[in-house]
Formats: sequence, structure tokens, C-alpha cells
Amino acid sequence: RVVQAYSTTSTTSTFDRLIPKHDDFSQRHIGPAPSEKVAMLETIGVESIEELISQAMPQKIRLNRELNIGPALDENQLLRRFDEICQQNKVWRTYIGMGFYNCVVPNTIMRNIFENPGWTTQYTPYQPEISQGRLEGLLNYQTMIADMTKLDIANASLLDEATACAEAMGLSFRHNKRRKFYVDSKLHPQNIAVVQTRASALGINVEVSDREKMDFSNHDYSGVIIQYPDTEGTIYDLTTMVEQAHSNGTLVICTTDLLALTILRPPGEFGVDIAVGSSQRFGVPLGFGGPHAGFFAIKEVFKRVMPGRVVGVTRDANGKEAYRLALQTREQHIRRDKATSNICTAQALLANMAAMFAVYHGPNGLKHIGKRVHNATLILARGLKEAGHHVTNDIFFDTLKVIPVWSAETIKSQAEQKQINFYYYSDGGIGISLDETTEESDLQDLFSIFDCPKSVREIAEMVGPEPENSILQSPFRRTSSYLTHPVFNRYQSETNIVRYMKILENKDISLCHSMIPLGSCTMKLNSTTQMMPCSRTEFKDIHPFVPEDQVEGYHQLFSELEKDLCEITGYDKISFQPNSGAQGEYAGLRTIRAYLESIGESQRTVCLIPESAHGTNPASAQMAGMKILQIRVNKSGSIDIDDLKAKTEKHSDTLAVLMITYPSTNGVFDEDISEICDLIHANGGQVYLDGANMNAQVGICRPGDYGSDVSHLNLHKTFCIPHGGGGPGMGPIGVKEHLAPFLPSHPVIPVKGTINGQPFGTISAAPYGSSAILPISWAYIKMMAGSGLRHATEMAIINANYMSKRLNGYYKILFTNKNGFCAHEFILDCREFKKNSGVEVIDIAKRLQDYGFHAPTMSFPVSGSLMIEPTESEDKEELDKYCDALISIHKEIEMIEEGKLDPLDNPLKNAPHPVTVLTATNWDRPYPREMACSPAAFVIPNTKFWPMVARIDDIYGDQHLVCNRPPDTYYASPYSKLVMEKQRVKSVS
Amino acid sequence: RVVQAYSTTSTTSTFDRLIPKHDDFSQRHIGPAPSEKVAMLETIGVESIEELISQAMPQKIRLNRELNIGPALDENQLLRRFDEICQQNKVWRTYIGMGFYNCVVPNTIMRNIFENPGWTTQYTPYQPEISQGRLEGLLNYQTMIADMTKLDIANASLLDEATACAEAMGLSFRHNKRRKFYVDSKLHPQNIAVVQTRASALGINVEVSDREKMDFSNHDYSGVIIQYPDTEGTIYDLTTMVEQAHSNGTLVICTTDLLALTILRPPGEFGVDIAVGSSQRFGVPLGFGGPHAGFFAIKEVFKRVMPGRVVGVTRDANGKEAYRLALQTREQHIRRDKATSNICTAQALLANMAAMFAVYHGPNGLKHIGKRVHNATLILARGLKEAGHHVTNDIFFDTLKVIPVWSAETIKSQAEQKQINFYYYSDGGIGISLDETTEESDLQDLFSIFDCPKSVREIAEMVGPEPENSILQSPFRRTSSYLTHPVFNRYQSETNIVRYMKILENKDISLCHSMIPLGSCTMKLNSTTQMMPCSRTEFKDIHPFVPEDQVEGYHQLFSELEKDLCEITGYDKISFQPNSGAQGEYAGLRTIRAYLESIGESQRTVCLIPESAHGTNPASAQMAGMKILQIRVNKSGSIDIDDLKAKTEKHSDTLAVLMITYPSTNGVFDEDISEICDLIHANGGQVYLDGANMNAQVGICRPGDYGSDVSHLNLHKTFCIPHGGGGPGMGPIGVKEHLAPFLPSHPVIPVKGTINGQPFGTISAAPYGSSAILPISWAYIKMMAGSGLRHATEMAIINANYMSKRLNGYYKILFTNKNGFCAHEFILDCREFKKNSGVEVIDIAKRLQDYGFHAPTMSFPVSGSLMIEPTESEDKEELDKYCDALISIHKEIEMIEEGKLDPLDNPLKNAPHPVTVLTATNWDRPYPREMACSPAAFVIPNTKFWPMVARIDDIYGDQHLVCNRPPDTYYASPYSKLVMEKQRVKSVS
Ligand SMILES: Cc1ncc(COP(=O)(O)O)c(C=O)c1O
Ligand SMILES: Cc1ncc(COP(=O)(O)O)c(C=O)c1O
Ligand SMILES: O=C([O-])O
Repeated sequence: RVVQAYSTTSTTSTFDRLIPKHDDFSQRHIGPAPSEKVAMLETIGVESIEELISQAMPQKIRLNRELNIGPALDENQLLRRFDEICQQNKVWRTYIGMGFYNCVVPNTIMRNIFENPGWTTQYTPYQPEISQGRLEGLLNYQTMIADMTKLDIANASLLDEATACAEAMGLSFRHNKRRKFYVDSKLHPQNIAVVQTRASALGINVEVSDREKMDFSNHDYSGVIIQYPDTEGTIYDLTTMVEQAHSNGTLVICTTDLLALTILRPPGEFGVDIAVGSSQRFGVPLGFGGPHAGFFAIKEVFKRVMPGRVVGVTRDANGKEAYRLALQTREQHIRRDKATSNICTAQALLANMAAMFAVYHGPNGLKHIGKRVHNATLILARGLKEAGHHVTNDIFFDTLKVIPVWSAETIKSQAEQKQINFYYYSDGGIGISLDETTEESDLQDLFSIFDCPKSVREIAEMVGPEPENSILQSPFRRTSSYLTHPVFNRYQSETNIVRYMKILENKDISLCHSMIPLGSCTMKLNSTTQMMPCSRTEFKDIHPFVPEDQVEGYHQLFSELEKDLCEITGYDKISFQPNSGAQGEYAGLRTIRAYLESIGESQRTVCLIPESAHGTNPASAQMAGMKILQIRVNKSGSIDIDDLKAKTEKHSDTLAVLMITYPSTNGVFDEDISEICDLIHANGGQVYLDGANMNAQVGICRPGDYGSDVSHLNLHKTFCIPHGGGGPGMGPIGVKEHLAPFLPSHPVIPVKGTINGQPFGTISAAPYGSSAILPISWAYIKMMAGSGLRHATEMAIINANYMSKRLNGYYKILFTNKNGFCAHEFILDCREFKKNSGVEVIDIAKRLQDYGFHAPTMSFPVSGSLMIEPTESEDKEELDKYCDALISIHKEIEMIEEGKLDPLDNPLKNAPHPVTVLTATNWDRPYPREMACSPAAFVIPNTKFWPMVARIDDIYGDQHLVCNRPPDTYYASPYSKLVMEKQRVKSVS
Repeated sequence: RVVQAYSTTSTTSTFDRLIPKHDDFSQRHIGPAPSEKVAMLETIGVESIEELISQAMPQKIRLNRELNIGPALDENQLLRRFDEICQQNKVWRTYIGMGFYNCVVPNTIMRNIFENPGWTTQYTPYQPEISQGRLEGLLNYQTMIADMTKLDIANASLLDEATACAEAMGLSFRHNKRRKFYVDSKLHPQNIAVVQTRASALGINVEVSDREKMDFSNHDYSGVIIQYPDTEGTIYDLTTMVEQAHSNGTLVICTTDLLALTILRPPGEFGVDIAVGSSQRFGVPLGFGGPHAGFFAIKEVFKRVMPGRVVGVTRDANGKEAYRLALQTREQHIRRDKATSNICTAQALLANMAAMFAVYHGPNGLKHIGKRVHNATLILARGLKEAGHHVTNDIFFDTLKVIPVWSAETIKSQAEQKQINFYYYSDGGIGISLDETTEESDLQDLFSIFDCPKSVREIAEMVGPEPENSILQSPFRRTSSYLTHPVFNRYQSETNIVRYMKILENKDISLCHSMIPLGSCTMKLNSTTQMMPCSRTEFKDIHPFVPEDQVEGYHQLFSELEKDLCEITGYDKISFQPNSGAQGEYAGLRTIRAYLESIGESQRTVCLIPESAHGTNPASAQMAGMKILQIRVNKSGSIDIDDLKAKTEKHSDTLAVLMITYPSTNGVFDEDISEICDLIHANGGQVYLDGANMNAQVGICRPGDYGSDVSHLNLHKTFCIPHGGGGPGMGPIGVKEHLAPFLPSHPVIPVKGTINGQPFGTISAAPYGSSAILPISWAYIKMMAGSGLRHATEMAIINANYMSKRLNGYYKILFTNKNGFCAHEFILDCREFKKNSGVEVIDIAKRLQDYGFHAPTMSFPVSGSLMIEPTESEDKEELDKYCDALISIHKEIEMIEEGKLDPLDNPLKNAPHPVTVLTATNWDRPYPREMACSPAAFVIPNTKFWPMVARIDDIYGDQHLVCNRPPDTYYASPYSKLVMEKQRVKSVS
């Protein structure tokens, strides 16, 4: 049996036998112990791991060698290596601004959220009853955004500010179908670039224009987007423009700055339709560009066309207030190519951090910070003028564009001596953005660089305590209040915020509690050692637009990770710009289109997508301006080759790409994958292989080998970035050489290695996407190395086949390959129960919560099914518990069928059962309390994870949409209610 | 009203008005918001803070100026300052050993325990129903120690290895009353020193002797202590010695090494009575000497004379297995001067870390590490011999004493070039201890320092795969198994250990959940920023015996902290050696005795202690060899001046010291404190002022000003070191100048500033105690600065008086001063309820758990009372909830009195109510479920903290003492039991 035991490596030298490796990370990452592996293989009915693998997948695509990653590093070696890489980055003081600002991340939030697996390892809150903590955090976020912008509804985050701009343009277009769109030339350059790129595929005509020159009178502009304050820092009055735009049917979008809005009139007050921006400077590290949460707020009328996830308020089965994702019918996983966007993984964790920053500071604290930054900028402006420089801005918040009296070069060299970065405009102007961290000594240094003859304190005296050009003395002053909800006004002490963070944490199930076997989502171990680099100042405190020689460490890490990912996938080049899987799809498709155009095949726009594909595929294809044709899937879950052949041949002139997932979203390794790729190529198309299921392939086969041209890699699945309750993620794409020249670039920082390319455009605000979380995947690969990665894949496949074998007979396993095996996940068909018991798949999913478990993926890719992906990190004991739970639920279904349980009033229909229900005197259900809350041997009320509310009422919530925190109703405990009721009864009688 | 608002500082300059401080830590540390402060003063009935303070304490002792600490640093400034201090430490590779070893702290344990407030902010587990997590962790620890040493019972930690040696000597003496005691000369020097120091005050005659020369035949030796392996690394056969000792009635104590015992025959197998040592190298950072858990294991016969806390297994009111502190009748808080030791705060957190290290590695992993280290040492020894050096050890584990062929000086300079530390014996020998972190390159460096002509791999070949002088080839080989309990065999994957840590965390109430108003314990905020320095490699990875020029950062911090603590207390000098309050008392008393001896007054041994004193006071006085006389306390809670006068005068020839707590343990500022001090001085005595209540004094009065000579400061109370569930703590002492020369020193590293002194001896293994947690207190002081510290004290007093006012009328408030005010804590007399309702104080304490709260200090200093100390970190909302809970409980008592609740079967007598009880079908209690679990408006079943078990049966546990993990009984959920029972019924019928 090929089963690894503790620390046995096939050593030869005496030294290696005497002093073997101290610790093997792969053995910590992979759950099952050697004896468990043996037992599982037995259950599966194979003699060895090799036998299983060779049965589960086509031999011909196998990689018959170990990946060449280098020797596995142990955890400490890894951190030492990272230390060396850190030395190559330089953390200068940076005043570049342009959408990215230094800020003070409260240490208690960093430690208790960002560095706490209880906050980072949750899944997206599709199961609201066990996700009330995150949902409350995200509702706080939405409330904060709506308050600050003075718009009606905000979503729960987008990927960054630039994509939020592009999504706003998309909304305008969906709203009025006009194909012209104005972009103010004073947007941050990356915002312009991403909007332009997005527009070009949708056939929208973007005009970048001076805002004075815009003319809406033709009724043909869909929308206009302006930046407020603008990229050079200037604040201007938009009232007239908004009126003009509106009177011509043009929507107005404002990309704005949350900190400025603490003292600046908010866009909602002068009528803009949509406000977008980044919430980074609310307590999220710079991280060389990300991850940060983009925000998106709208007038209520647009709620049904809004992109992204939205948290809403609803009630549960008992009428109790509860939170859940609202309006899901807008989203790709339901609407596919008709969705309001392709967004799936967003930036939940970062949105939660930003919201907690607002909770911690409260409105007074935020205004205090806003005023401080603004005052510092007033002092700076005055000092610069005093020194004879020209400050181009009249009214500003924190950013100045300065025309120096001498050359910018002189200033630059003086700044460099002090290790200070500014933004240098091509016109010789210098951009300086101050921020929350600016102190007197910083101002003094700026004064000295610009040769200001006076001290900061002297200039402050000249400015006076109520500076005349302050926003606060101007009509731009904010007069409306914000963050008045109690949640923003009671956690200003550290004791209180810690308790609040803990309360929310403890409402959510996460990988810290039990397995979360979400098919297609690869919820595996996110180890501490992988996370530790993300807290290092040399990685987190760097602005994305600093000169390249300050980020050699980042580039070292990128190039090592690129090399390893190429080795793993068989591709030739990686782009790190996409910061989610869906973004990767979009980037990949645009790359293909650019390539096709370059060879004179721009007519090729047909995109074939199997009907079982993930919703992001069609949604991304739609965004890439493609014509989507669905390919049928046959009974066995494989792509219907005949249908594929027919459509391929029929459209061979216009075929651009086949998007295919491998192993398929049905959890099976199709036999014919190489032939399929050949077929597409033979007909002039390219193959986009969705890499979400790489966890079944790493080390045993490579998309680049068997015919794919491009894939995204969800680093937040296979490569250990924690899901964060719905993001962050990273979706870099790997491509074959012929596609490499077309990978995305960036308007401010040319992406390394694409300089001589013909990039199709820009898709993210930052040149390398959410760079700051890449060390997680880098660390994972380096610590696992070739054999560890391969073995992880093997174990993912073993674990899935083991569970599938155990559940077979109780549940119909939907798809297996010709030998009867699945890949790393499998599907339980739950449709059959309906007829005899009335039980639907959602009842099973909710009932699992009573067993302390998160449901598998529900109704994807087959409706009425559950897709289970255990991953390699779960051990047999945990798999067995999960199987026991499902088998026990099956028994409950039988009891309904047999009439032993009521068909309507039974534990499945009533699931989940929160503790409040179970501890109430009143229990009128026809089954015992114990059956409700401790239905299996291992489910112990004292230690189990309890759902916080009863089953969510989704329809009610969507019908009565509330996306901001409702007023706190004074919550009385059940006993207080009892007492009150009795008193009422008494006083009545 | 003197109420601070957000960011209002009395600034004058325009600059400071424009750019005020970014954030004020003191406002994060202090709970109540300005408006709350106003409301509380109103309730108390005073106009201003100043009015309250001047009413609550004697005017004449007030410090009428701000403390001179320097300007308050904000959190980031603090961390930058700490960064600079870190630069002054140098982290060299260190092979000094001698009880302190490098180890690999698993990052997941570091992050999820050490850096997690859910693990660090709990109180000592006196309330077992809400502390089952820590108790399980500590039971794992005891089981691990018992297994590794092969003794019957281990305790839950002592302060360090050296004090464990001294405690073992104490046990011997208590056991057989013999006054002679042998110490093997090959003990680590600090162990010898601490034993000698301890012995000298108890009148025990210590003979340090070559172990060959020991002679037990006179039946007059109480015990003998040997080190195994000895301090020079040698392993020897102790069988004969143990036989000889035993046959002469002498106990044998072995101080040993846990890692060695993974492959070395354990002391329990050759008959030793007591095994002690340090568990540091099981995953706890070096930290320049501490905090680390000392272990202590015994044969069962000694269980009633064992020192320290012991966790035991018992059952709860429902017969369910549960854990709690056992055999408390041995301890100082009950037995006072007859206690088995003075230990109170121990090293719970570090014991938990060490236990988790064993859980994570399991027996195989630990043996793997043990063998690796041993093999590396075998290779080293062979290499050194090859190079011509003399290795003095025949059989060894990881430590060698080498006599080099050239001078040690040559070796030393070569080592220094490579930044490597060895231990240099005065006889020219060199001590080298390898450890878990030693890798090939390290060995190669050692070879090169010693000019070994061959490579490490060549020497390994010569040593061969089964080296002949390996322990494993010798009779010293361990043959018995260890850590066979499942808990040590199922959490080897990171996923599993994270879940296990989370399960335990969530069983324990901590400051993350709600206030823990333990009178005399000052459970206040432990902020993240204070904790962060403890994770820095420059502080945590330093051996305590490195040369002074490598720890200038540590000394910088010591001297800053000393300066600030002197300013705060009015003392002239601080000793950081005591690592708990009780150790501080002992050190202070010994300092006084040494001083008295130096002035020819060695006959002064009488120690006066008020009867209300904390148990550690008499216990420490007893250890210091003093004659204890109790002083009466009068009705108002103050010291009975007449009694004091009488005893002082009667014993004026022999009076050594008065130990007094201020404000008194009754929570009141005695009026006469200065007069009392004068009286003692006038009669030739010294004043020891117990500093546990410094939280009522900082910034408003100073012991050194009003007449005290020495105090300990519980840094884990007033100065923010988290309690860790029962340690670590630090109890440095401050003394007036005349006592300074007598402060403790250290045999290996002379304590700075005591070099020309006449130290009374040594009390800790490390020269500066648990140095690694001192940054916490340093950070607190620097961020609060003078006005913040003062205001914290004021708020502690306001909070206490506010609660006392709210509770007055419901509960009898036992003591107040002449104006009716308490200090920072107050006592509720609960004795009166017994008569009419049968309710005892314990019922109230347990019932508080049902409200989600930890009980206050119970029955100290007055039996049948609760002592409440809210601290400044709790806001009014939390204080109100706690008051509401107590008032609601009072109402429940009234309902019993009125016959509305059954006198025996009521929620108080049945408290606490775990969720298993409440979710059971069977509910036969005469009050509703809601009253049991959600008895007040704010107690919400879904989010409240639930007790894990019902009321603990203490007596049963002590009668059936079990201190190791019992076999896991297969736990079936209540429903499974229900089903099983039904089936049994069926199969019977
Ligand atoms: C098959 C498949 N493709 C694409 C995606 C989209 O990835 P992301 O959520 O990172 O945008 C997913 C996400 O679950 C997926 O399962
Ligand atoms: C008044 C008093 N003195 C001394 C001590 C002992 O301190 P430690 O627990 O640090 O040994 C305590 C601890 O609670 C105390 O309250
Ligand atoms: O949301 C999904 O990851 O499908």
C-alpha cells in the first residue's frame, strides 16, 4: 500500500536517517493519518492509492513525474525564506494617493479579525442561519456606505474601486441601453483604464473628457462618471452637471472617498445615482494594491439591476429578525449570462474590517480623523505657497497637485533622500496625498523637501484655527449626520470592540468548527504559517504605485509563484491581475479575443459553454462580448460530444472558445478531454479551462499538457487563501505562450513581462491584483513541494470516493466515471425524496445545521442536489461524522415515508432548530426536543455549533427589502417575555 | 464636571488644535464614555470626580501632582519605540542549555492560544462550570507530565524549575521533618541557589555534594535532589542511590528533562518520589527566562502535601464527568500559613501551550524530535572527539561538556564570530546543548568552530545508523509507552488541532465575553498593542544566560519600567525577579530580614498580619521563617488599631514587619495608614504593603510616600498582563533605598544594579523572572502616561462606587469609609439570605453563570460574601447588566422567601443550567425553562455564554481523586440515549 507514515522519507544517507526532517508540513496539511488512509482505501475497494488514481482518471493525461518545485520547506524554513524576500522590499513614506492611502489599522481588529481563523475561514454566507455574524458585519458595512455617501442602498463589496466604476457603467447601460458613456479625465488613471477595457467588449463608446466640456443634450449618453474629489485632489460643484445629465436621461456616477465624506457634502445630496469607491483607507492595509473592498451605493430604484452581493434583513420561521443575502436572482449563479455582473467571490473580509473600523471610531472618531487629515493638508498647501510653489487646487481635502518653482527632478531627488514617494505627473506637477498617519514630523520633512522657509507650527499659526479655505468654511461642508445607528456608537473602548468581534465570530460556523464540504469551493486548511506573511509590514504597508526598485521582494515572490504555477498547470505565463475566479475568466476570454484579433480572426466571438458550467462562465463570457452557445451534458454528466461536435463544426468560422471545467462540475474526469481540446483547436477555437477544480489535478495532470490554452486558478480554493466569508480571493490566469502578449497591463505601473506585449487592457485597480495575499499560496506550494502537492490531490480524491462509497445506498450518487469513481467531489441527488416524503434538498441542507454542519453546495450544478467536496485536509473521523449525519437524515426521511414522522411538522421541515426554540417551555412538535438538537451520537448540545435563527424567510426579505441596519428593537429574553405576558394577562383579567 | 471628552486636550497652539493627537489609548482602555461618566457621578451623588476621590480616600496621603511618565504614546508610536528597543537585542544561536532550550513553537499554537484573547484573558478556573476548556488543557498537561515522568500525579504547574526544586524540598521537610537535605552539585546552578535560599529561611541544612559521596545512613536527611541528565549533560544510574536513600527514610527528588524522557528511562521507573522540571522546551519561547511552566509530579502518597494547583476529575450535579481544581484545602487561600506553598498565580497559559505541543506532536512526534536531537548530539560528540577534544560525558542526551584541546578562549572567539553562544565553565570546559532547532548547517558550524576535519555527513557515516553509545542502545533506554490517551493521538493535523483549540476556547468564559469583576484581581483590558511585543523574536527567542551585550534592549526596557514603577509607587528600586505576587511577598520579606540582619537585628522575626489578609501573606511569611501574629480587623473593616498597637508594643524587640494591604482587602482606604506605618517604624519594624490593590492608587497616592518600605506589584492585575487562566504573572517588588542592597541576585547572571549589594539569595530560575511579559506593563504605562493612569484609577473608583450604589438596598454593602464610599472594590454580604431562603453565597455565584457572568471573588476576605472589582475598563452598560443580574437574583431570593419558589428546587440551588439540561424532554422542575436560562432581559439564549456542565461536585472529586485524563467514555448525545433506552425497553418487553 502506498501510504505515507510519519516522517518516513526514502532516505539513503546515514545522516538523513539519524536526523530526518524535523516536521513535514504536508502531513499537517493532509488530514488522514496513515492508518485511516488504509481503512479508506479498503472501503473504496482498491489496493492502493495508485490503483484508485488510475481508475478515477484517464491514463493518457497523467503527468508521470513529480512536480519540480524544489525540496519542501518546513514552516520555519519557509518563514526564514519569506524574511529574506521581505528584505528586498523597501517601505518608504508614500504620498501617492490615487485611491490608495496609508491608514492606521487598529491592532485589535488586525489580530482579532484578520489574524483570526474564526473570522477568515468561513464560507460565503449562503447558509444564513449559521452566518449571522458576518452578515451583521456586512450589513454594518452597507449601512456605513449608504450613510457616508447618502445613497439608499449599498452592496456588500465589489473587488476594487476600478471595477466598481466599470460595474456602474454596466448598470447605466443595462438601465438605458445607450451606448455612449462619459468619463471625466480627472478620474484615477486605473479607473479610466478599467472602464475603457470593460466598455470596449460591451460595445460601449467611452469618451474621456474634461468635465467642463461634457454635453448631454443629445440624449445619447448612458451615464457619466466623475471623481470627487478628483484624482488631482480638487473638489468642485457638481450640482449643475447632475441636473443637466438627469434632464437628458443620463445617469451620474460619482467615485468618491469615504474619509473625505466625513466632512464633505456627500454625493447623495447633490443627486448622483451611484457612488462607488474603495473602503481601503478605513483600516485595511495598502498591501501593494489589495485586497480591498470596493463599494457600490445606489438610489433605491436601481436595486434590481445592482451588481454584487447584498445583505438584507428578513425574518426567520419564528418571525425573528435575521439577515441573509438578498436579491440573489440578480446574480450569476441564478441568472447566468443575464446576471447583473459575474461577481462571485468579492471582498467580504475586507468589508468587514472596514465596517469594524467605523464601529471602533464611530462618527466622532471618523470626523476627528477626517478633520486632522484635512487640516494637515491646509498647512501643507500654505507652506508650499509660502515657499513659492504653485498649488493648483482651490478646494481640496487631502490631495494637492503642486507645480514646483524648480524642476520636479530636484524635488524628486530631495524626496528620495528622505525615502519619500510622491506622484510625478507627466506635466511636471507633483501629487501629494496626506492621510491618517501624517504627523508633524512628516509635514516638516515635506516642508524641507520643498524648501519652505518656515516651520510647520509657524505656518499653522498663519493658517489659523479656522482656516478660510477649509472645506468646513465652504459650501462643500457636510451638514448631515452619519453613522447614527447605535452599533457605531457603543464600541469605542477596546474591551467593547473585542467583545463585539467575538460575539459576531461566535455566530458563524467556520473551518474552526467542522468541515465545510462545499463542492467546487475547496474549503481546505488555511494554515497559520501561510497567513503570517500577510501581517508583515514589508508586504502590507506598500502602495501599489511605488517605483519598482522598492518592491523587489514582491517581484521575487511573483516570479517564484509564477514559475511554480506554470509547473503545476503546464502553462507558460501567469497574470496576477485578476482578483477573483470570475475576473480570471473575464481576463482569459479577453486575452483570447485579443489574440484572435491579432491573427485577423476578430469575427470569432462564439463561446461554447456546457449547461453544467458555473454561473460565472456565461456571465463572464457575456461581459467579454461573446455570443454564448450552450452545450448539452449527457446522462453520465459528461459533455455531450455529439452536441459539441455539431456546434463546433457549425460555428467553425466564428468559434472563439470553449469554456470547460475539468474535472467537470459534476466531479468527474471526462475521458475525452484531450480529444475535446483537439476538436476545438481544429476548428480554430481556443480552450478556456476553468481551474476551479485544480484540487483534483495538481501533481497528477496539467491543463497545459492535455490541450487547454488558458485557465484561471482560484487561489482561494486549491491554493489555501481562506475564503474570508466571501472573499478575498485571487484568480490569476495561466496561458500558453501564444496568448502571453495579450495579458492585461496597467496604466500607471507597467506590468512586468508584458512591456512588449499587446495587452487587451486593464481589469483591476492594482497591477497585480490582490498582491498581499499571494504569499499564502506561495507558502503552501513551497511547504508542500512536488510530492506533498501530489499526495494532497490523491487524498482529496480518496476522501471524496470514500464518502461517496459510504453514502451510496442512502443517496443516489449522480455521476461517476466508467469505473465507478468520482474525482475530488461528487453529487447526491436529493430529488427522489420529494415524492414519498415531501423532503426537498433545502430541508436536508438546513437539517445538517442541527448536526453542527454546513451544507454542501446546493443545487449546483444539478438542481435538487448536494455536491460534496471534502478536500484532503479532513480526516476520516470528520468524514465519518458527516456521513453519519447524512445517513441519519436519510433515516429521518424514511421515518416520514413510513409515517413515523409527520410529513409537514418534522425535524427536516422545521430545521434548523435554534437554542431559543429548544429551551422554551412551549414545545408542541410531534418529535422530541432531543431529536431536534442532538440527533446523532456525536452531536452534543453543550459543544455543538448552534444555528442562531430558525429557517430564513427569503421571499419575505426580498419583498420587504431592507439593506441598512434597522433600529435596534429592545430585545427581551424569552423569560422576560413570559413575565411580561403573564403580567399583561394579569392586568387584563 | 471633570469629565474627559473625545480628543479634547487642553491645547494652546494652533497646530495642536488643527492636528490633535490621532488617538488616545487611555480612551480606548477606559470603558465609560463621557456621558456615562456624568450619569454615574450623578447616581453616586457627587458633583465631580475630584469630589468623589477626596471623599473616598484620606487627603493627607494624596499625590497632588501628575505622575512624571512623559507624554502618552499612541499605539503606533509605542510599537515604533518597541522596535527601537528590539534593535538593541541580538538574537544569536545559543547552545547554553541549563534548563532553557530553543524549541519550535508551532505557529498555529502561538497564534491561536498565545495571541488569542479567548485563551489569555480568562481568570483562574475557580468557577469550573465555565472553565472546562482550560481545565481540560491543564488535565492534559498533568497527564503528559505523569506519563513522561512515570509518576502518579502531577500538578497544573509551578512558577519554574528552580522553585519546583525548592517546593520539592519543602514537601520532603513537611513529610519527615528532617532538617538536612542533600543537593547534588550537578544541578543547574540556579536550582541549587533557589533551594539554598529557600532552605536558609526554613532552618533546613542544605549540603551540596558530589552524588558519589552522599551518605544517608544516619537517617537524618530529609531528601536528596539530583538532576537527570545532570547539568553537564551526563546520564547515570540512580537505582542504587534511590534504594539507599529510601532504606534510610530519605525522599528522592529528580529534576529532569521532558524531551530526554521521550527516549530515556523515566524517573518513576527507578523509584524516585518526586520529579520536577521545566516544560519550556515543549513549545514555549525562551523569553529571556520566562514565563515557563515548572512541573511537579509525585507518587500518590504525597498528594495531600503537594504544592500548587491540581486539576481533578469529578462529576456534576447530573452525574456527568467534569473537571475542576482539586484538593484546594492544601492551598494558601484556605490553609494560610499551614498551606503546602504560597503559590497562587502559576503558569496556566504556558502549561496549556506545552500540553498542546504534546497533543499536536503526539507520542510519535515527540519521540521523533527526541531521537533527532539525541542523534545530532551523538554526531557532534563524535566530531569533537575526531578533532581531538575531550568530551567528558559517556552517556548523554543532548548536552556535552567539552574540554577543548586549545583554550576555551580560542573557541569562544571563533564562536562569537559566528554569533554563537556556549556555556563556559570556570574550569575551562565548554557546555553545548543541542535542541529541536538544530539542523545540519548548525552542526557544520559547530564542527568548524572546533576545527573538526570531517564533514557532518562523514561523521554521521562513522557514527552509523545505530550508534553504539546511543541511549537507545543502552540500559537507559525508555521501554515504556507514554501519551497513549486518545487526546494525544488524534490532533496531528493542523485542521484538527485548530478545532481542538477552538473547542476548548469556547468552553471558557473570558474577558472577550463579559466582565469578570473579581475583587482583588483587577481583570481589566489586556490590549492587543500591549501583547504584540511578546511575539517579537528579539524578545521571545533569547536565552536568559546570554552575555549582557546581547540584551541591551531588555535592559533598556527594564530600566524604563523600573523608573516608571518607582515614580508610580514612590519606591527607589525594583527587583524583577519575583514572577508572581506571592513570590514578591516572599522576596520582600526576605529582603527585610536580610536588612534587619545587616543592622544586627536578626532577632526580629515577628510578622504582623491582619486577619483579613490574602492567604499568600501568611503563607509567604511562613516560608520566610517568620513568626506570624494576627491583627484583628474591626467592624468597619479597618485594622483594629488598638490590637495593632498592643501587639506592636508587646513585640517591639522582635517585630520585623507588618504586612498590610492598601486599600484594605475590604476595599476601603483606611484613614490611618500613615500613622500605622509610623507606629511600626517607631517600634523597629518595617512595613510590607501588599500591592495587589494598586489599581486604586496609581496616580493618586504612593506607598513609598506614606510610609511603606516594600511592596510587590501584581503586574497581571494593575498593569495589564492577562491572567492566562491562572498565570503567567509578574510580581516585582519595589523597595525604599535602605532595602535595595538586599534584593535577590542570581548565580549565573549577576542582576544589574545589585552587584555591590548583599543579596539575600535567589528566588527564581531566571535573573529577571518572567521577563518576556514585561513589555505588556511597559506598554500600558507608556500609552496611558501620567494623566491616563490617574484617570484610570479614578474610573476604577467611580465604577466600584456606582455599582455599590446601585446594589445597595438589595445587598448589604459590607464596608465603606467614614463618608460612605469604597475604593475600587466592595463587598456584598450574602450571609443574611441563608436564614429565610436557604440561599448561600455559592448559589448566587453559580446563578450568575446563568446570566452569562463570572462570579465575583467569593468568600474572600469575608466568608459568605462576594467582592466586586469592576475596573476602569468596563463601561456603564456592562456594569448595569451585572447589577441587573444581581438585582434579579435578589428578586429570586425574595420569591423563595415569599414561597413563590421552592426552597430546595429553585433556580439558585440548581444553578448553573447547562444547555443539555434545558433541551431535554424531561423538565420536572417547578420553574419554567425560560427562568432557568434567560432570566433577565439581556440574557438571550442564542448569544449568551453557556455553562458546560451543571454544578460541580467538589467533595466527590476530592474523595475519588483522579488527576489524569480518564479513558474517553463514548459520549452519546441525549437523543441517541433516548433511542437506545427505548430500544432497551423494547428488547426487554
Ligand atoms: C467552477 C467555478 N468556476 C468559477 C468560479 C468563480 O470563482 P470566484 O468565486 O473566485 O469568482 C467558481 C466559484 O465557486 C467555480 O466553482
Ligand atoms: C491581596 C493579594 N495579595 C497577594 C496576592 C497574590 O498574588 P499572585 O496570585 O500573583 O501570587 C493576591 C492575588 O490574588 C492578592 O489578591
Ligand atoms: O459562490 C460560489 O463559490 O459558487
